[in-house]
Amino acid sequence: MSKKFAPRTSIEQVEEGKDLAPKFDADGLIPAVTTDVHSGELLMVGYMNAEALSKTIETGEAHYWSRSRQALWHKGATSGLVQTVKELMVDDDQDCVWLKVDVAGGASCHVGYRSCFYRRIPIGKDAARLEFTDTEKVFDPKKVYGEAPNPTKL
Amino acid sequence: MSKKFAPRTSIEQVEEGKDLAPKFDADGLIPAVTTDVHSGELLMVGYMNAEALSKTIETGEAHYWSRSRQALWHKGATSGLVQTVKELMVDDDQDCVWLKVDVAGGASCHVGYRSCFYRRIPIGKDAARLEFTDTEKVFDPKKVYGEAPNPTKL
Repeated sequence: MSKKFAPRTSIEQVEEGKDLAPKFDADGLIPAVTTDVHSGELLMVGYMNAEALSKTIETGEAHYWSRSRQALWHKGATSGLVQTVKELMVDDDQDCVWLKVDVAGGASCHVGYRSCFYRRIPIGKDAARLEFTDTEKVFDPKKVYGEAPNPTKL
Repeated sequence: MSKKFAPRTSIEQVEEGKDLAPKFDADGLIPAVTTDVHSGELLMVGYMNAEALSKTIETGEAHYWSRSRQALWHKGATSGLVQTVKELMVDDDQDCVWLKVDVAGGASCHVGYRSCFYRRIPIGKDAARLEFTDTEKVFDPKKVYGEAPNPTKL
């Protein structure tokens, strides 16, 4: 555990105090929600371990834990689409963080879209068919990632 | 598995198709990110199992899986702060959903704040001390929840 993090001693400390005392799950991870600081749009949801959270705080650039690669992931190291953290928030029980970022190049999704969230689930329908809300790719994933394995797992 | 959900057959189907084929984790859960449809503010991050996602799609009201209570959780059933889902999105590999909601009463956090994210982690500081960005509670949790156990776990 980094010296940045305090032990969790009481509900009052965690919810109403100024100690950063994150609760990592059984795998040592905490979800990280990343929005565009300009548009407010949700770009991605990733995971951080203690090291990724420490690095993000230290450098001001988003670091995650890649569950598919099982490795520390400096976002943009391959694609150049680095996320500069403009504001970093923590939630009430400190088991989640929120990054408001400025994205170099404007894209965050490995499929090539601006956001990972480009399809809508219709409400009230029985057999859901997704609706595309974004059809324009910002970059060509083949050019950016080449033959790197796709992180999506079935 | 609900009839709403398709089996996951290929990366192309999952990323570029119109089938709703969510990937639940080893505990049968998917994270759900909830923002205010008006302000764009991040309100909370919860989890859904297949039933919670189905109920959300059917009813247009946010349902989660409460990990602390290990029960289906119709948000607002106790507090009255029901979340009406205005738009529901799914991400590229379909292991996360995004709810844009209209919140009755304007609050989403059991501590009493408008959002669960009311504290900032300063960037570049060695020993992080949280900074409050919201100090005004929208409701008094004692009045709303009475003696119900606090969901925050140490």
